[in-house]
Amino acid sequence: MPRITEERRTERREQILAGARRCFAEYGYEGATVVRLEKATGLSRGAIFNYFSSKDDLFLELAWRDDERFIRLWLAKGWEAAIREVAAEDADWLGVYLELTRKIRTDPGFRRAHEKRSDPERARELIAQVASEQEQGLFREDLPAEQIAGFISLVANGMVVQMAAGEPIRAFDALIEFIRSAVAPPARQPARPRRSG
Amino acid sequence: MPRITEERRTERREQILAGARRCFAEYGYEGATVVRLEKATGLSRGAIFNYFSSKDDLFLELAWRDDERFIRLWLAKGWEAAIREVAAEDADWLGVYLELTRKIRTDPGFRRAHEKRSDPERARELIAQVASEQEQGLFREDLPAEQIAGFISLVANGMVVQMAAGEPIRAFDALIEFIRSAVAPPARQPARPRRSG
Repeated sequence: MPRITEERRTERREQILAGARRCFAEYGYEGATVVRLEKATGLSRGAIFNYFSSKDDLFLELAWRDDERFIRLWLAKGWEAAIREVAAEDADWLGVYLELTRKIRTDPGFRRAHEKRSDPERARELIAQVASEQEQGLFREDLPAEQIAGFISLVANGMVVQMAAGEPIRAFDALIEFIRSAVAPPARQPARPRRSG
Repeated sequence: MPRITEERRTERREQILAGARRCFAEYGYEGATVVRLEKATGLSRGAIFNYFSSKDDLFLELAWRDDERFIRLWLAKGWEAAIREVAAEDADWLGVYLELTRKIRTDPGFRRAHEKRSDPERARELIAQVASEQEQGLFREDLPAEQIAGFISLVANGMVVQMAAGEPIRAFDALIEFIRSAVAPPARQPARPRRSG
């Protein structure tokens, strides 16, 4: 029996995820039938479900990767870069994410599977970075770092709804400016010009 | 053939909407079958579809009423009151709203029905009020009134996602403070104490 290498397995996994993402985006979650998933991935159902236990599992892996990319970008390049990434996201895919929000809360198995993927260490890392940037005067200090991170994430979710409903983020610079004003330290008094000498 | 009065018709309409809202919230949009809608409203399918042409129509009426209430509250009592109303909303119902977001964009008939309900006059009224409050120094003036109104609505949508995913808005006062800082005019220089006399 032929065995495929680890590298080939990773490639296949990525091929399946990319195809499933397109398929979900095009047909919605319910509409992404097994036949359509086969067509979109170019693989048989046997192959697909050899890598992922179910359609839910495929979706959760894709959603987790989005979250992970958002946090990674924020850690590496700041929240503006993460927000910019959301604004550039495919509205079709974002709509699927919203379709499943309710299920995350109401379907216990799905919820557990979703929570199992979430990485508390990663969230702590983000909050620690925000706290350190508070000390550097980059964020306001009257509210805790968790709440600053939480507010920016909430705004990102608001972008998702707006984009999924068919309204792209047109005034992107204004959006960044609103967020910045929300989380910035209070404006400093302009320094008094000192007399020389 | 008995005829029912206008008042009775209005009552029935409200009875159907209230039942449908509970039914959508409990079972999700797909899960809200005609049999369940009959049970939740206490009326036959004949009666229900005498008042509303379809399940889509029922949902769109409910969603429109939410939007309308949000704007009305904002106009009458300010954006904080409107935001507070969102935070008090039923997470189950909000999840249904998200489930349908994708459909608003991708299903042309549904989209048209949704747009037909939206009231541009109401939106203009809101923007005019924000513009007038800008002049009174209640909002920043460096960004247009539409963008200020748009940002606050975007934050409200972010609340919807968070709540629908099972995380109630705990730090409500902090949220209000973030929004206020985002849309407030720049802090004024403290007035210099004047010498008397």
